[in-house]
Amino acid sequence: MNTGKPIAIIALGKYLPEKVDSNSLEEKYDIPKGWSEEKSGVQSRHQITFESSGYMGARAIEKALLKSQLQMKDIDMIISAAATFDYILPNQASIIKSELKNCLHLNTATIDINTTCLSFISAFELASKLLDGKQYKNIIIVSSEISSKGLDPDNWETFTLFGDGAVAAVLQYDENSDSRFIKGGQRTYSEGVEFTIIKGGGNKYFFKDYPYDQQLHSFKMNGIKLLKLAKTKLPEFIDSFFEDLSINILDTNVIIPHQASKIGLMLFNRLYNFREGQVKENLKMYGNCIAASIPLVLHDTIESGEIKRGDLCFLIGTSAGFSIGGVLFKY
Amino acid sequence: MNTGKPIAIIALGKYLPEKVDSNSLEEKYDIPKGWSEEKSGVQSRHQITFESSGYMGARAIEKALLKSQLQMKDIDMIISAAATFDYILPNQASIIKSELKNCLHLNTATIDINTTCLSFISAFELASKLLDGKQYKNIIIVSSEISSKGLDPDNWETFTLFGDGAVAAVLQYDENSDSRFIKGGQRTYSEGVEFTIIKGGGNKYFFKDYPYDQQLHSFKMNGIKLLKLAKTKLPEFIDSFFEDLSINILDTNVIIPHQASKIGLMLFNRLYNFREGQVKENLKMYGNCIAASIPLVLHDTIESGEIKRGDLCFLIGTSAGFSIGGVLFKY
Repeated sequence: MNTGKPIAIIALGKYLPEKVDSNSLEEKYDIPKGWSEEKSGVQSRHQITFESSGYMGARAIEKALLKSQLQMKDIDMIISAAATFDYILPNQASIIKSELKNCLHLNTATIDINTTCLSFISAFELASKLLDGKQYKNIIIVSSEISSKGLDPDNWETFTLFGDGAVAAVLQYDENSDSRFIKGGQRTYSEGVEFTIIKGGGNKYFFKDYPYDQQLHSFKMNGIKLLKLAKTKLPEFIDSFFEDLSINILDTNVIIPHQASKIGLMLFNRLYNFREGQVKENLKMYGNCIAASIPLVLHDTIESGEIKRGDLCFLIGTSAGFSIGGVLFKY
Repeated sequence: MNTGKPIAIIALGKYLPEKVDSNSLEEKYDIPKGWSEEKSGVQSRHQITFESSGYMGARAIEKALLKSQLQMKDIDMIISAAATFDYILPNQASIIKSELKNCLHLNTATIDINTTCLSFISAFELASKLLDGKQYKNIIIVSSEISSKGLDPDNWETFTLFGDGAVAAVLQYDENSDSRFIKGGQRTYSEGVEFTIIKGGGNKYFFKDYPYDQQLHSFKMNGIKLLKLAKTKLPEFIDSFFEDLSINILDTNVIIPHQASKIGLMLFNRLYNFREGQVKENLKMYGNCIAASIPLVLHDTIESGEIKRGDLCFLIGTSAGFSIGGVLFKY
């Protein structure tokens, strides 16, 4: 499949804060032993101690650059693709850039793209449209997420599910490359707009008028309604995504779904008759790292050799909003 | 100038909340009479009473659609281009979409782009790269901003400067149009990363650990340092923006700078030998409406006939981060 634009992911880098086992989390917060792995499917996740999103994002970029053999001066834009942030203002990409070592003199453009859990997918599509080998030769997408701050310890389902972490990917326009960006797309189903929400902290429940309240300021998820909606809409979205292509989802080599939850991944795996090993997962090791989940799987499966150059890869996920999005590319 | 992509702004719509005169603001908050207009250059601004960003954004979209003679079903994507938001999660574009009348059945894609005050400019460039007349025929960019919540009444400089409001623009790919997207670009100068900031409310000063504090949770601006940096970097950015084009900034018909502040606009006007009426302003009427400022000027100058089809327009601004960005297009 050589349609599409000659865009290659030339390197990825990741940064993970301290590892936290489910056992120790269960002990500390009085959750029954074994509950986390059984219910949320998460054995361990990583959680910040001293780190900020800016710090983790900058370290992930530095690692990706090292592998890419490029330097920051070769990068035309940094896209922060995430749902969480260090400050209300300025935008997170400018914070991440400012934390890069020895890069203060560079004037790399910085842009934030936020489609919550789908941010990496959206950024991948937008970066691929920008990259032209002229004005934009290399773009870094960085998904740095801190979920641990906004979780309610009394809501075991979400508290044991999420993790923190950062991944950066260097995308390059290269006419001599065999890699291809083929297609991206997204749809928003507004009937699910309040199924996943953090109500407090924005302008609607402004912190001046609504002081901190564990209920109001924590992540809320209506898991049952969410799964029901995803089950109906995912096949519809996927079928329509592949409609104008000469292949279908089963013809891809690798599928990386968003690591939403144990039951979410089970649901996804039952939608089609996937080959063994075709759908990649890492929920058990990292939990749901919001927008960093998909690139984390991508990073590790490339490192392990499960994804090889020439492989047709499909990234697909759901997000708060409620949206479904996907990106198809040849690695 | 017919280089570029055949993309046209086919309509704009705006929504403004209640008008608040500087006089009444000064009376209410014990600010010396006349201070606002003299120092910040703002005679009146609009401020929300019952409105949310979602509400204002949806109303602006509905007005733009009415003028465009398109319907929501013709729109392939809604981009929220703003720095402020209703909820921490989900993303603002999905909130705005959910508040559109009779559109619950539509699955329009929703994406947030945030480069603070430059968000409309960044979204313009990215939308223009996406629009192809096939997968993306029409994209709406909506900048809906509520600044009034995050201002410190004791900091007169910022308190009297900012305003609330929303503007939506319908962009269309049309091969038969004479309109053109010509170029976009941005640069981030990290030495200014903390010159404009809202420290509290994100993950770094999380509201659980840092209860509401007027200082921490309000917009802070180091005006003097900001102006100094802008003065050095603006000409450098503009010269380099036009370097590979056959024209310079003075050859454009209309220039719309971000309505940052009275002194910021004065500084900008002195950079080049602009013709009378070439640079458009509305700071006096609306204040600085963050990312909504530039499209507000665009909306009103098109309505008044100051911008005509075929005019070469340059949008240019500075933002927190510290970034400078611009977009050149033929209306």
